[in-house]
Amino acid sequence: MELTFLGTGAGVPSKERNVSAVALRFTDAGGETWLFDCGEATQHQVLSSPVKLTRVTRIWITHLHGDHIFGLPGLLGSRSFQGAETPLILYGPAGLKEYVEVSLKTSGTYLRYPLTVEEVTDGRVLEEHNGVRVRVQALDHTLPCYGYRVEEPDRPGRLQVERLKREGVAPGPHFRDLKAGKEVILPDGRRLYGSDYLEPNKPGRQVVILGDTRAVPEITDFARGADVLVHEATFGEGEEEMATRHGHSTTVQAAEMAKRAGVKRLILTHISARYRLANEKELLAQARRVFPHTELARDHEVVVVSSP
Amino acid sequence: MELTFLGTGAGVPSKERNVSAVALRFTDAGGETWLFDCGEATQHQVLSSPVKLTRVTRIWITHLHGDHIFGLPGLLGSRSFQGAETPLILYGPAGLKEYVEVSLKTSGTYLRYPLTVEEVTDGRVLEEHNGVRVRVQALDHTLPCYGYRVEEPDRPGRLQVERLKREGVAPGPHFRDLKAGKEVILPDGRRLYGSDYLEPNKPGRQVVILGDTRAVPEITDFARGADVLVHEATFGEGEEEMATRHGHSTTVQAAEMAKRAGVKRLILTHISARYRLANEKELLAQARRVFPHTELARDHEVVVVSSP
Repeated sequence: MELTFLGTGAGVPSKERNVSAVALRFTDAGGETWLFDCGEATQHQVLSSPVKLTRVTRIWITHLHGDHIFGLPGLLGSRSFQGAETPLILYGPAGLKEYVEVSLKTSGTYLRYPLTVEEVTDGRVLEEHNGVRVRVQALDHTLPCYGYRVEEPDRPGRLQVERLKREGVAPGPHFRDLKAGKEVILPDGRRLYGSDYLEPNKPGRQVVILGDTRAVPEITDFARGADVLVHEATFGEGEEEMATRHGHSTTVQAAEMAKRAGVKRLILTHISARYRLANEKELLAQARRVFPHTELARDHEVVVVSSP
Repeated sequence: MELTFLGTGAGVPSKERNVSAVALRFTDAGGETWLFDCGEATQHQVLSSPVKLTRVTRIWITHLHGDHIFGLPGLLGSRSFQGAETPLILYGPAGLKEYVEVSLKTSGTYLRYPLTVEEVTDGRVLEEHNGVRVRVQALDHTLPCYGYRVEEPDRPGRLQVERLKREGVAPGPHFRDLKAGKEVILPDGRRLYGSDYLEPNKPGRQVVILGDTRAVPEITDFARGADVLVHEATFGEGEEEMATRHGHSTTVQAAEMAKRAGVKRLILTHISARYRLANEKELLAQARRVFPHTELARDHEVVVVSSP
């Protein structure tokens, strides 16, 4: 899995950061790609990124503020222009469907692929392809807003091939059955059980991507133990009052959340245009004093999500 | 008057050309600015241009294809975010109002300035501030599409000050009255008439900006004698059949139009992404063989419209 940050700014685009979008590529499954939010000019950012629009199969919208959705109609049209014929599902809050339908209708945009718009609700769990599960959590912003937790299924552990060889078991169909956890009877009459020869399950990766939000307690459980937590940090330390007023978080609040939830890595994004790249060091330092495993995303940054 | 090309591509953005938008700045009237079309990421292009969103008072939409309107909601919001409180009028084909209203409503975009959306029709003549007149012409595209002709009023000619001095008229209030074309009686009893001492009127500048269109005869009269004609040239010479099928023009068809209409300068824009900057020379050469005073716009190019 790989996260590509396409837009890491808040509210309005600046020369340094575009408005919100992040791509999640399933690198080990044919490159299927999901987008989280789609601010204006996301398709422009895609032009100089490893993301291929034709590979995008899901778009998860956290909330309907313009800096998170105004890139949708253009991106949907360009995906069709590029020849995509595979279905696309768009998830997001109530109201998304009308916006997309009116935009496509007004502009006479014809899509050569089937588009479905599904409205999400708090607590929903969606089963996606390859056993990937997505959980939905309502957040606390100035309009309905959601976070998404992407959970890869656990994968069966490695078969202890060397040990089997030592015990005189020849490679062949038996190995496949043991790998699948089955019981096998050898030519010499021995009975072996797959479970005895498998390493423990490899836990799937867990990525939590939140929309704009105040740092509310519900997030702690939702983000618990995640390999990566993508959390907004619109403001820096000391701006807590402003953050609360506008439904946002500060660097320090995001770091405290990461610490409480026991995540492995925190990535800050949705940085206000009041901060320039030159302020990055200070913003990052504020968060790292609380939670050392913090990074601050830049546009076009690619983050590899490694297995736990 | 100054034209700033913010997007000169067609259909989809490329790394070289953004989708359609051109700004017309009235340099001699406080910098009021009009936009013509507003494709996605026009506000991004504005960030590195001389255009100020707070100075934009009119946006003229030629037609509702996504590459001409998907930048509107974001730009309207950012204009407000930047503090503009002066009214903005949006002109365009039927359907524009619903699109803008649904986009702003869905995204919870609050505008601190009054926004009016006015639908235009073929043949309409709009009287704008400072006597500037805008004529509307229906074009021939795959959906309703318009061209706009911006006509500055003629300005009164210069007062022949040297001649008046030679004839013994002292500078003072008389000069102002003569300049205004009035009759004055001098202390020595002479009667002078303003019209005798004024140079001929300076004709106002005429700029014609067309939306996507086949090269149809109605355009000839509409563009007649313009100082600048901005004409689409989606395709190059030899692609006439494709151009006609998709409601567009070629470089050569645009040049023939400029010649027939007797305009002073032709500026080609809306160049298909199939052509790269490397193909520009050839596209331009095709047009110049027919109409030598042709230019081909690039993103961020500024064109000064001089008086005739």
